[in-house]
Amino acid sequence: MNPDITRERENATFNVEKLTHILDGGIEKTKRRREIESLVISDPDFQSEDLNFLSRSERYNAAAKKSAQMILKLREYGISDPEEIYCYKSCVHRGRSEPLDLHLGMFLPTLLNQASPEQVETFFIPAWNLEIIGTYAQTEMGHGTHLRGLETTATYDPATQEFVMNSPTITSIKWWPGGLGKTSNHAIVLAQLHTQGKCHGLHAFIVPLRSMNTHIPLPGVVVGDIGPKFGFDEVDNGYLKLENVRIPRDNMLMKYAKVEADGTYVKPPSAKLTYGTMVFIRSMIVGEAAHALAKSCTIAIRYSSVRHQSEIRPGEPEPQIMDYQTQQYKLFPLLATAYAYKFVGHYMNQVYHRITGDISQGDFSELPELHALSAGLKAFTTWTASAGIEVCRMACGGHGYSRCSALPDIYVNFVATCTYEGENTVMMLQTARFLIKSYRQASAGHQLSGIVSYLNESECRLQPQTVSSRPTVVNINDLASLVEAYKLRAAKLVELAAKSIQQELQKRVSQEDAWNNSAIDLVRASDAHCHYVVVKLFAAKLGEIGDTGVHSVLSTLALLYALQGIQQHSGDFLQTGLLSGPQLSQVSQRLKELLAQLRPNAVALVDAFDYRDEMLNSVLGRYDGNVYEHMFEWARRSPLNKTEVHESYHKYLKPLQAKL
Amino acid sequence: MNPDITRERENATFNVEKLTHILDGGIEKTKRRREIESLVISDPDFQSEDLNFLSRSERYNAAAKKSAQMILKLREYGISDPEEIYCYKSCVHRGRSEPLDLHLGMFLPTLLNQASPEQVETFFIPAWNLEIIGTYAQTEMGHGTHLRGLETTATYDPATQEFVMNSPTITSIKWWPGGLGKTSNHAIVLAQLHTQGKCHGLHAFIVPLRSMNTHIPLPGVVVGDIGPKFGFDEVDNGYLKLENVRIPRDNMLMKYAKVEADGTYVKPPSAKLTYGTMVFIRSMIVGEAAHALAKSCTIAIRYSSVRHQSEIRPGEPEPQIMDYQTQQYKLFPLLATAYAYKFVGHYMNQVYHRITGDISQGDFSELPELHALSAGLKAFTTWTASAGIEVCRMACGGHGYSRCSALPDIYVNFVATCTYEGENTVMMLQTARFLIKSYRQASAGHQLSGIVSYLNESECRLQPQTVSSRPTVVNINDLASLVEAYKLRAAKLVELAAKSIQQELQKRVSQEDAWNNSAIDLVRASDAHCHYVVVKLFAAKLGEIGDTGVHSVLSTLALLYALQGIQQHSGDFLQTGLLSGPQLSQVSQRLKELLAQLRPNAVALVDAFDYRDEMLNSVLGRYDGNVYEHMFEWARRSPLNKTEVHESYHKYLKPLQAKL
Repeated sequence: MNPDITRERENATFNVEKLTHILDGGIEKTKRRREIESLVISDPDFQSEDLNFLSRSERYNAAAKKSAQMILKLREYGISDPEEIYCYKSCVHRGRSEPLDLHLGMFLPTLLNQASPEQVETFFIPAWNLEIIGTYAQTEMGHGTHLRGLETTATYDPATQEFVMNSPTITSIKWWPGGLGKTSNHAIVLAQLHTQGKCHGLHAFIVPLRSMNTHIPLPGVVVGDIGPKFGFDEVDNGYLKLENVRIPRDNMLMKYAKVEADGTYVKPPSAKLTYGTMVFIRSMIVGEAAHALAKSCTIAIRYSSVRHQSEIRPGEPEPQIMDYQTQQYKLFPLLATAYAYKFVGHYMNQVYHRITGDISQGDFSELPELHALSAGLKAFTTWTASAGIEVCRMACGGHGYSRCSALPDIYVNFVATCTYEGENTVMMLQTARFLIKSYRQASAGHQLSGIVSYLNESECRLQPQTVSSRPTVVNINDLASLVEAYKLRAAKLVELAAKSIQQELQKRVSQEDAWNNSAIDLVRASDAHCHYVVVKLFAAKLGEIGDTGVHSVLSTLALLYALQGIQQHSGDFLQTGLLSGPQLSQVSQRLKELLAQLRPNAVALVDAFDYRDEMLNSVLGRYDGNVYEHMFEWARRSPLNKTEVHESYHKYLKPLQAKL
Repeated sequence: MNPDITRERENATFNVEKLTHILDGGIEKTKRRREIESLVISDPDFQSEDLNFLSRSERYNAAAKKSAQMILKLREYGISDPEEIYCYKSCVHRGRSEPLDLHLGMFLPTLLNQASPEQVETFFIPAWNLEIIGTYAQTEMGHGTHLRGLETTATYDPATQEFVMNSPTITSIKWWPGGLGKTSNHAIVLAQLHTQGKCHGLHAFIVPLRSMNTHIPLPGVVVGDIGPKFGFDEVDNGYLKLENVRIPRDNMLMKYAKVEADGTYVKPPSAKLTYGTMVFIRSMIVGEAAHALAKSCTIAIRYSSVRHQSEIRPGEPEPQIMDYQTQQYKLFPLLATAYAYKFVGHYMNQVYHRITGDISQGDFSELPELHALSAGLKAFTTWTASAGIEVCRMACGGHGYSRCSALPDIYVNFVATCTYEGENTVMMLQTARFLIKSYRQASAGHQLSGIVSYLNESECRLQPQTVSSRPTVVNINDLASLVEAYKLRAAKLVELAAKSIQQELQKRVSQEDAWNNSAIDLVRASDAHCHYVVVKLFAAKLGEIGDTGVHSVLSTLALLYALQGIQQHSGDFLQTGLLSGPQLSQVSQRLKELLAQLRPNAVALVDAFDYRDEMLNSVLGRYDGNVYEHMFEWARRSPLNKTEVHESYHKYLKPLQAKL
């Protein structure tokens, strides 16, 4: 054990294990998670060479091998609770995506939710036994978030009682679905349904892609891998071009909408049902943001405690780089953010489960608000976490740039969340739509409920002119007062966006153009709303914590999170009169004090995330802090070192010397 | 040609070719650059498979091949002007780093600058003919920016007149030098010189690493590749462990310092000489920042003109995504930034060449300021450009995440500049040191010269309390007035940092701790100083432009750049009383107008950067806008598509089906 990191742990002022239990949701959950982790980590079938040393084809191959093993073992061990399956799977693939992700996460659930009872019988058991391996093919080369724009067609032919599936243009080729390129033999394909000469919009169809015997693509099916990406090297994201592929009528998912034998179309009862899944996936992504940032902070903070560099005082030994104020200023607010997002993730998960109960009883009332909030929080947390991972990486200096740090890998795999499941700017504008609607209702005197009810409060709708005349009430040392300030800021920015739309409308532009011409303000309003929610939830979480030591350190983190946000958006707080110039100087001063206060607990706070070395897979983030010897050992295993002299020497350099 | 992009070009209001000449530095330079590009692009020896489809070893191999060809052809064509060599090289390697970079850029120049005439004779010609292939080994595993911390030793043995080279600890292993792992047979090694029982600090030694015949490492030399990194796949960054390696006394570079045969050490005359090289490399990096951002903007803006998505007005066709205000707000300020950095790069290059003339005449007076400025601008531009590349990538939605966009590649290779040649935070603090020194001189009544002379102006040192009482003079539509505002902001933040140090000192902490405890403020001050310089240089450039059309569009860009910076740092401008709240609202409004104003010229402005498709190597950034068919064609060439059925199906999936 590196003595620097031992000393850090000795200086901690709280019980790390207790904080871990809070993060896991209870002592029992910590215990069970650790059991599952040990099960995987000690399993000889799940050992493999460092993925960084493999080609893409080898990485896909290794992932397919692990996925197959994983399915067998989950059944062998009888692990069936969704949370435990998720934990086991994350552990097997070290948090990476894998070829069967869409089979397990989209194909099977979609069958359960949208197939008729007969279809479940036909398809579910073969899919459960992986005879049918499926994916979910929605996105097309030319069409992403805007579902109505999708071009793939399914035309019903009553003569044969079949649908004829086609990709009529190059832009209609299905593009991106995970597992589509090489792994799947079926796909649920989203296509425009045409029957009896009319188009009835998007519906889902089960399309066989490859032979169940040979795995060779079926006639009319052009399928393959879309090529290398920024990350996701283990996944065969694919393309699919359908050329007059005929499927039986029974392959349209018919729980809700139907096409009868003669081609008569029967409408589905309601469209709101798909909201739930979207909320669930987005709340999972918020959890992933917490996770990615927590891992990055663990690596950067542990490394900062063992890395010595430069000098603060001349003649003295090089200090730990964590002693530099600038280093603390990079890392500690991100650590606070990781904690904040952990608690936001918990909250969203709880709310989702509560509301799912309501929905099953026919009560949809809270769904629009949760849907809007989940969209914004997905964007808010993924943007911040992505940028934060890179800050952590660069805070590790040159070694952060090596793949041995694991940080490049965390970044490229996580940053995709900014784009998938709803591009972030589009998400922010969805939240804004709900905020503006709520603002207008409040202005019209309606009483709002839920988290947007602050738009009702009269002090939130003061005129900008009157701001300077009222006393500033924010107490920068009081978290509750800061939550209030964030709330007022959000209210102001929602109002500003609403007014921008109003002003545009006065120029006689259309509603739609007024919206687009105010989009910058709308995104800003959503961002402020989400920021308020995060600060509020972090503050609320503190109320649940009994242990004094843990409560104290988390309070410091929460205050740091809130004050740093104010400093970063100081223009908003000044412009809306919520803070004065001198108060802002106090915020800067207070931030520095908080950094110094957190310094002794930094390593303990990342230890509490409880990532085992096997899960982090980072030479810089090792628990024992013995970084350098392992970096050397890792480098020597690099493929370029398999021979002392690389073939290119004999092929190019040696002949060159002769020619010059 | 895609009709959307044709229409964009028809709508431009200025002559693209004229702007290209300005960017190149004159019509003749444009002509020559294009000649060189054509020479390379049409050369059958420089065609190769898409690097994205190759393994790392194959990429290194392909790069070594190209580098060898390049050396032969440069001599064949007689290209010897450094700028033209740089252009040819960039073109051959499409802007990527390559195995011989350090041989050409560090080993040969260091020989010329630091070797004695006899040493030049011994080493330079073999190195010129690539019998000796060298690198520059400075950084160690445990030591980066802080040169005094380096541990490698060179101990003089007068008995044999040799130096004994050693890596005494694991942290002393040389780590990171490009070309060290596999390519080089020599290295210039920086080591602590010990002679006659005393250590004389860092000196440079030529150390043979590999046999000149077999390329096998020599006894005592442990050398290899440090393993895969975020980017730089073509370069064999290496490690080097020296175990009692003996080199002749003549292998110490002895132009300045010397060790005589008996071991007597002779001191060098001055240490300032190395400043020049650092300034040069950093000014090159600023140019690279402009280049990386310009390429990214070219890709994202062209793609935004041909990509259609969602709807602004219901029922109408999907609009070009460039019509969304949020998309313009992401991309146009970055386009303005790319132009700003191009002009900053030009300026630094000119100043460097002017000052180099002064230095050769013994006049070092301007060097400290330029050195400080180059450090800060390197950090300022590389941080912004790195983040900007990712904004461009994400603005391309899902397809930006594909390697076919080229944006992942631009990012991973460029972002390293934030860390190498001086870690950015360290760079900012170097600039701050100069600013604080200048501030103190100004406070003591000294008249400053050069770019920091604004610290002399009395209105820059008003007390914060008096700010609100004086009239706000900034005219947000006048660039000169905005330059002034940036200047006053910089002055305020320098003052704030100086006061923070003062306050710390009053707490009776040491100078060094006071500095560290004010580091956040110091970085902020440097950032503001650099921002001022960039805005000022952009404004100054406008004065040189005669063509009305070009002048007009560049003026819009400059105003956009200045106003967006104000919006992003609105807290500073409000807190220092430089802008009022209502003025800030006007800034937001004006920004939206500028975005709309730039919209018709966006494609033409990226066309003016004049990147040929072969240089961009991006499916999304194609000049003809025919994105989708080429994306499909690219994907089909992906290695995973070489077989219809991947081997993993037979190995893992098929057997799994039997077991379930």
